[in-house]
Amino acid sequence: MSTSTVRPSETAATRLRPLGAPQATVVDGFWAERLRTNREATIPHGYDQLGRSGALGNLRLAAGADGQYQALTDTSGTTFPFLDSDVYKWLEAAGWELGRGPDAELAAASDEAIGLVAAAQRADGYINSFVQVLGGGLPHRDLAWGHEFYCVGHLIQAAIAWHRALGDDRLLDIAVRAADRIDSEFGPAGRPGIDGHPGIEMALVELTRATGEKRYLTLAARMLELRGQGLLGQGRFGSAYWQDHAPVRDAPTVAGHAVRQLYLDCGAVDVAVELGDDGLLESVRRRWRDMVDTRRYLTGALGSRHRDEAFGDPYELPPDRAYAETCAAVASVMLAWRLLLATGEAGYADAIERTMYNGVLPGISLEGTLFFYTNPLQRRTHRASEPGGHGERTPWNACACCPPNVMRLLSSWQQYVATSHDGGVQIHQYASADIRADLPGGEVVLSTRTGYPHDGHLSVQIGQTPDAPWALSLRVPGWSRSATLTDPAGTRPVGPGEVVIERAWAAGDTVELALDMPVRLTEPDPRVDAIRGCVAVERGPLVYCVESADLPAGHELEDLVFDAGRSPAPADRTDVGPGSFVGVDVPLNRRGAAADSMVARAIPYYAWANRHAGAMRVWIPRM
Amino acid sequence: MSTSTVRPSETAATRLRPLGAPQATVVDGFWAERLRTNREATIPHGYDQLGRSGALGNLRLAAGADGQYQALTDTSGTTFPFLDSDVYKWLEAAGWELGRGPDAELAAASDEAIGLVAAAQRADGYINSFVQVLGGGLPHRDLAWGHEFYCVGHLIQAAIAWHRALGDDRLLDIAVRAADRIDSEFGPAGRPGIDGHPGIEMALVELTRATGEKRYLTLAARMLELRGQGLLGQGRFGSAYWQDHAPVRDAPTVAGHAVRQLYLDCGAVDVAVELGDDGLLESVRRRWRDMVDTRRYLTGALGSRHRDEAFGDPYELPPDRAYAETCAAVASVMLAWRLLLATGEAGYADAIERTMYNGVLPGISLEGTLFFYTNPLQRRTHRASEPGGHGERTPWNACACCPPNVMRLLSSWQQYVATSHDGGVQIHQYASADIRADLPGGEVVLSTRTGYPHDGHLSVQIGQTPDAPWALSLRVPGWSRSATLTDPAGTRPVGPGEVVIERAWAAGDTVELALDMPVRLTEPDPRVDAIRGCVAVERGPLVYCVESADLPAGHELEDLVFDAGRSPAPADRTDVGPGSFVGVDVPLNRRGAAADSMVARAIPYYAWANRHAGAMRVWIPRM
Repeated sequence: MSTSTVRPSETAATRLRPLGAPQATVVDGFWAERLRTNREATIPHGYDQLGRSGALGNLRLAAGADGQYQALTDTSGTTFPFLDSDVYKWLEAAGWELGRGPDAELAAASDEAIGLVAAAQRADGYINSFVQVLGGGLPHRDLAWGHEFYCVGHLIQAAIAWHRALGDDRLLDIAVRAADRIDSEFGPAGRPGIDGHPGIEMALVELTRATGEKRYLTLAARMLELRGQGLLGQGRFGSAYWQDHAPVRDAPTVAGHAVRQLYLDCGAVDVAVELGDDGLLESVRRRWRDMVDTRRYLTGALGSRHRDEAFGDPYELPPDRAYAETCAAVASVMLAWRLLLATGEAGYADAIERTMYNGVLPGISLEGTLFFYTNPLQRRTHRASEPGGHGERTPWNACACCPPNVMRLLSSWQQYVATSHDGGVQIHQYASADIRADLPGGEVVLSTRTGYPHDGHLSVQIGQTPDAPWALSLRVPGWSRSATLTDPAGTRPVGPGEVVIERAWAAGDTVELALDMPVRLTEPDPRVDAIRGCVAVERGPLVYCVESADLPAGHELEDLVFDAGRSPAPADRTDVGPGSFVGVDVPLNRRGAAADSMVARAIPYYAWANRHAGAMRVWIPRM
Repeated sequence: MSTSTVRPSETAATRLRPLGAPQATVVDGFWAERLRTNREATIPHGYDQLGRSGALGNLRLAAGADGQYQALTDTSGTTFPFLDSDVYKWLEAAGWELGRGPDAELAAASDEAIGLVAAAQRADGYINSFVQVLGGGLPHRDLAWGHEFYCVGHLIQAAIAWHRALGDDRLLDIAVRAADRIDSEFGPAGRPGIDGHPGIEMALVELTRATGEKRYLTLAARMLELRGQGLLGQGRFGSAYWQDHAPVRDAPTVAGHAVRQLYLDCGAVDVAVELGDDGLLESVRRRWRDMVDTRRYLTGALGSRHRDEAFGDPYELPPDRAYAETCAAVASVMLAWRLLLATGEAGYADAIERTMYNGVLPGISLEGTLFFYTNPLQRRTHRASEPGGHGERTPWNACACCPPNVMRLLSSWQQYVATSHDGGVQIHQYASADIRADLPGGEVVLSTRTGYPHDGHLSVQIGQTPDAPWALSLRVPGWSRSATLTDPAGTRPVGPGEVVIERAWAAGDTVELALDMPVRLTEPDPRVDAIRGCVAVERGPLVYCVESADLPAGHELEDLVFDAGRSPAPADRTDVGPGSFVGVDVPLNRRGAAADSMVARAIPYYAWANRHAGAMRVWIPRM
């Protein structure tokens, strides 16, 4: 049985099967370091913050304790009602993490949190601390803004993690009762209802996958079909804000609130593959293509508008006012993963790579305890005298959706490394990892070793193999311009896409993939107005940036332009806090003074804002 | 006595004196047409909308009628509390307009509205329909968001208009009682209090000017001094949002919500000139300079951010996501006018010119009954399939601050044409106007005739003059590169700034100013990232734009670039709806296909979006 976060059923229309955590283990290198930070710093920090923010205390109140409900309140007096989901997302991360290895403190904190959730749930299965404490205990009075289904969706996802990673069904029992309560009111025989914030759809599909009970999948499909009929009204931002402007299978492009759209499309893929609904799957793929072509930042970030956290118009991708919510990057990884499983197309794994390194990781500090909610690609200045300046990383967000979202993604990240199908094993993400996969002929055991993302060399060693031939697939990333593959048959050049090596393998066989990693200068699409006349620096899967901390003394980033007469070049190993990476020396001039030339050390964008506040640019002007 | 909207007292530290409406009358040409539209279409439309929106009905409820309070409610259930100000702003416009000439229907509507206001006011002087009907009648419970002082500020401004233009003090009596109610609670002996939305400060100064009662000026000065001490808290957007982050006289730059900042600085100038507070005046001038240098759009529009309607960072001026609220343009004209009166510097009149033509007028349709709240300098697309696309002009705004703001500015616009001081008369804005000014030696009567802004020729004829010499000042706009002046002494070239002709005038003397109006190509400041590599077309005081309606068939604006090998040129007279103007033929190529060249007819930006929906650009890419 797979422990994966997404686990299509045996009959699902997917090309690839996830491996799951114990079958893919990151053992060393870049990702091992990030996963260790997540486990040892971020997740404990998160539990502390759940206590401080009131998220845990609110569940205690729902269970009957006395006290004051704590919640983010905006100045109009409206209280945001979704803090329960912070607890559930943290519990999901804790579940995957405990599945990776025991930790007494983490287990104790989890037991406490699970106990609070269990105590808060009503006898009828309903659970939502906001409604129970502040809302008079009257469920489902405001589906558009109440986030009640949304919170149950995250409860289910936490339950799935504990069920699959640990065989612990305490949360699953709670989640089933909560889902049954919703199904009884909103199922096929009940009233129509959808949540203003999608998310429960994918969770309900997973609940069917975990329990075998088809009702939840049916409810998810019903919620998808009910969308686009105007049930949510216009709200403050119009019906597209919550993707209620068009039926899911008809909407031509992504629209509205980015996280809502991406979570919705995750649910649509899950329903589509379970029901074999090719039209629904194709509608998601169409939206994905349009999004990548017209509305995705170089960093993989999504959603440019601050006002309604929305995708903007095509090519509306300002670097300075990029909203680029960390959660939207997380959600796009979740969606790309589903599309990869469904189709097997390497482009989706390319998207996961770009977004993980450049869209998700910048949302958390290198030390693991400070977060960005928005991830701009440019910061002009940061002076105390500029009250409109962008803020620094914070230990928690008032609306704390992003931090535990990063936690749960990182704690399940090794699941994204590889997949299998009856014909072989596919390596999608490069890390030093040990991988096992069950093929029809027997178990495959292999290990990958690499200095990725700073070094382009990957070594695959076959540790155990069935006698029958099977295919090892490696992904040559879309950014690669020169790569060679060495397998037992010899050495050959390979280009972007999936490279399939089908043969009868023997234990001890090795495959070497060498991806050349020159510094690349990336020109923007000329239709992206906001970065016209600029250039970006990339190397391997990493987007780079220039921070004011790395400028020669006395220079302001805003006065500098790229020196087209000189070339950027890889630099020595560069350290920023606990981060160590290949820097890139970027040639710059002072604008209008070509003789005033200098070099700035660019660093990976994921490492920005880990020193003192300052200006930063991904896109560097040519003029 | 002057009827002007701003009337510094005799002892105020100002260089120039306003003339006021009956002393400056626009009689023909561009502005006469716009003022006629305002009077005949916009203001009647506004009264109709005050009825539909509930603004009038709410006052009726406050006076004791039965019914349902009507107000813009956002989806969180918060009701915006400032609809009374729509009525007051409309009444201010009506007052100035009736002062320009009788109109029985307008007078009747005004009487009805004044009656409602009078009936709504409580015996203790308090008036705010929102608090009276929905707020339990408990005043001043939420100074940060309640807009109670703000509404009284607009009540006072309406009262000033009726008092000065018509000698009608019905509103002034109401305003005095409302101001006294505030002064009794928040005056020097009372508790400290400031409004989250400035505006009352300038009104209180005007109330002192109109009544001679110093208490209101003292209260205004107190409110200014109390700002920046944290009385308002952080709110949703931080204390800079409402300029409470620093004392008014210390804040180095504009910050936060643009309209709030500009209204506040209007009050600061008014207090500064009345009290001779040079430090306070200089702080406003410093902020103004920084704003013009780093945060003003080419159109004179201000405030780039949608999220908090705020000035962004320096050089953060996206054309597509420009917030550029019409009210902010109006407010900047009000502030520039005050600074012009205080200093006499022509640059402030330049700013008024740029902003009126290109920042205020685009906010209202040529027919006068449709409005823009935001005024972007670029619209990529407008397709029904793009739910995130920018909206079209609307008959009224849910938050209807802008339409009556434009009305009151246009109804008092002729006051901005000219000023006087003891030494002469200054013409600041060019229109066909008749002007009278009282100089120490006697009355000056003169007339200006011009085809401005489409023609650069201005003729001034002296109709009546004292015998003693006096100085006629004309402004050569900052955009001028070639101009000649012909006066009784001969012809000479003149450059930008104030041109002073001091002589003993005779009736019948004429002065001719000839401003050459070639088409200008304007390069952006290289620090404005969002328009790098673009060029804009200007002619005279007008900023031009290209609309998709004026492209050759089969072309999309987003595919076109400026053809640097050819020059733009003035075109034939061009008509758009009721608008007629000099078009400009702009040479374009399809991007990457230099041979695919064409010409598009650019129109003044103030005339955009008066045909069917489509793409538009002020800044045209060079690549």
